[in-house]
Amino acid sequence: MLEDPDCMSNEPTIEHIHDAAERIAGHAVRTPLIAYPLSDGNPNTRLFLKPETLQRTGSFKFRGAYTKISRLSPGERANGVVAFSSGNHAQGVAAAAGLHGIKSTIVMPEDAPAIKINNTRNLGAEVILYDRYSEDREAIGEKISTDTGAVMVRPFDDPDIISGQGTAALEIAQDMRATNQALDMVISPCGGGGLLAGTSLSISSLSPETEIWGVEPEGFDDTLRSFRSGTREGNDPANRTICDALSSPMPGELTFGINRKLVSGFVSVSDIETANAMREAFVRAKLVVEPGGATALAAVLSGKIPVAGRTVVVICSGGNVDPDLYSRILTTGSLD
Amino acid sequence: MLEDPDCMSNEPTIEHIHDAAERIAGHAVRTPLIAYPLSDGNPNTRLFLKPETLQRTGSFKFRGAYTKISRLSPGERANGVVAFSSGNHAQGVAAAAGLHGIKSTIVMPEDAPAIKINNTRNLGAEVILYDRYSEDREAIGEKISTDTGAVMVRPFDDPDIISGQGTAALEIAQDMRATNQALDMVISPCGGGGLLAGTSLSISSLSPETEIWGVEPEGFDDTLRSFRSGTREGNDPANRTICDALSSPMPGELTFGINRKLVSGFVSVSDIETANAMREAFVRAKLVVEPGGATALAAVLSGKIPVAGRTVVVICSGGNVDPDLYSRILTTGSLD
Repeated sequence: MLEDPDCMSNEPTIEHIHDAAERIAGHAVRTPLIAYPLSDGNPNTRLFLKPETLQRTGSFKFRGAYTKISRLSPGERANGVVAFSSGNHAQGVAAAAGLHGIKSTIVMPEDAPAIKINNTRNLGAEVILYDRYSEDREAIGEKISTDTGAVMVRPFDDPDIISGQGTAALEIAQDMRATNQALDMVISPCGGGGLLAGTSLSISSLSPETEIWGVEPEGFDDTLRSFRSGTREGNDPANRTICDALSSPMPGELTFGINRKLVSGFVSVSDIETANAMREAFVRAKLVVEPGGATALAAVLSGKIPVAGRTVVVICSGGNVDPDLYSRILTTGSLD
Repeated sequence: MLEDPDCMSNEPTIEHIHDAAERIAGHAVRTPLIAYPLSDGNPNTRLFLKPETLQRTGSFKFRGAYTKISRLSPGERANGVVAFSSGNHAQGVAAAAGLHGIKSTIVMPEDAPAIKINNTRNLGAEVILYDRYSEDREAIGEKISTDTGAVMVRPFDDPDIISGQGTAALEIAQDMRATNQALDMVISPCGGGGLLAGTSLSISSLSPETEIWGVEPEGFDDTLRSFRSGTREGNDPANRTICDALSSPMPGELTFGINRKLVSGFVSVSDIETANAMREAFVRAKLVVEPGGATALAAVLSGKIPVAGRTVVVICSGGNVDPDLYSRILTTGSLD
């Protein structure tokens, strides 16, 4: 492990990602690559899925949360951690804190799905509910941090979180090398950009000839527009998507700084394209993928990112999804 | 029926399983262990799933088929292979033959689901359809073998198939050792008994203190009854189950010889218990598990195999399931 992880510049390096991989070993699932039988008529196309759906707590978020907490000093850990999240980050932080034997407090909207609130409590967290229409979750989190000394664990714009998320692509690069396969392209869902930034750092270092693509939901294409304009853009707050995990308001400062340098391009996909990818992941790869986790696959299946004749890895970033929604998609292909 | 004492010389050893593991490396998926959040109130219970649902072709069957074909001499391979199967074995043999660049012929019932026939053809096999009510698939397969010189690849009662299937439990034992966890129990679905026999050989050699359990569908508990009586018993042909992958008529000679020696016990589960396990696997582990593949988990969730305070690995053996059936189970919990 790195001798002094505190002494890092703000942007993580591949050494920080290797260090994170050592920290999470035995705690995180080392998810395999699953060959996906793409019927595109080109015998040279190779498509693999990286199923972070199978990661502890059902999404890649555990990687970053565990890395962050493991790098805290005993003194920093003493008062626990606090995070705000309505979904996957909450469960990742709660589980990682539990494994370190420290307290976690999660600020969640009071209208979050009961199952997500219960899952977070079952992982040992104290859940503080707030009214998302009249209260500011970040301010509540900051106040808890100030009052109790708990360390704030941010969802994406933090070098420790980014280096933790980068371990997924580190495994991708290692597994492709172990089987002597050239890697032409890695495609990742993109919300706040933490997974994509970690992926970009790993892949650009270990496989510099590989293209890196990010995929957002339509209406939440803030990173695509920021990539084009060169400055961080936000989304229209009136927009809606089934990809709840990717509905962050704008790119992170640190994540965007990394992604604008290293990502080849971005595309956005419709909810219908995402639903189709969820169905295909179920039928062809036996994976349960939540909407946000299926956007990268949707970009391939819709043809928005051409992959003919290339060797491509798609990250399926999470699987925490309502079974009734999935049933509707399986039976009718519709979202209603 | 008398057991052939010569079959003992056919029995694979742990060395055959290690050899099989080397052969399949890079071709089969090394499936991970997934921690399952069992809410049984006992803080010492540890339950892990081994998701062979994610194996190439969607079930463990690829392991045995690839091992068998890789051990054929060039002369034996020259005329291809033939197999009879309506399901997972067909796809495993077709994929393994394709990877070896040899021809495969699969004898399938003409009323098999179109998707399974198409999947098998898409994997490169020639599919021969027969009428299951008036024709004998085994005789058809034998005739093809005799006429063409193709080698018959049997679904379970073959030492190469058994040693290939044993690689799944080899990985279980290795992964548990790598994380310094004691392994109290391994539970496997049981049809013809090939996966269970391979599992028994691996676990009894590498982790001799571990209990091994087999799980059958109600009405297809031929191995349980054979285990009790000491001789191979068949099932009533009128019985029905949703576990199509486990509806073999009686235990194999070689598989039963191994399982009767090494397995601690058997239980059988109802279709409703299996459906509940399929739902729980989807919601809690993000896995798509076919009915036959979910029986071992069903035995735990129904309490038929008590696991309180123990560290247990359950094999989920396959995921090739009709999405409409899964949707009904997810929404209503019913099979109708």
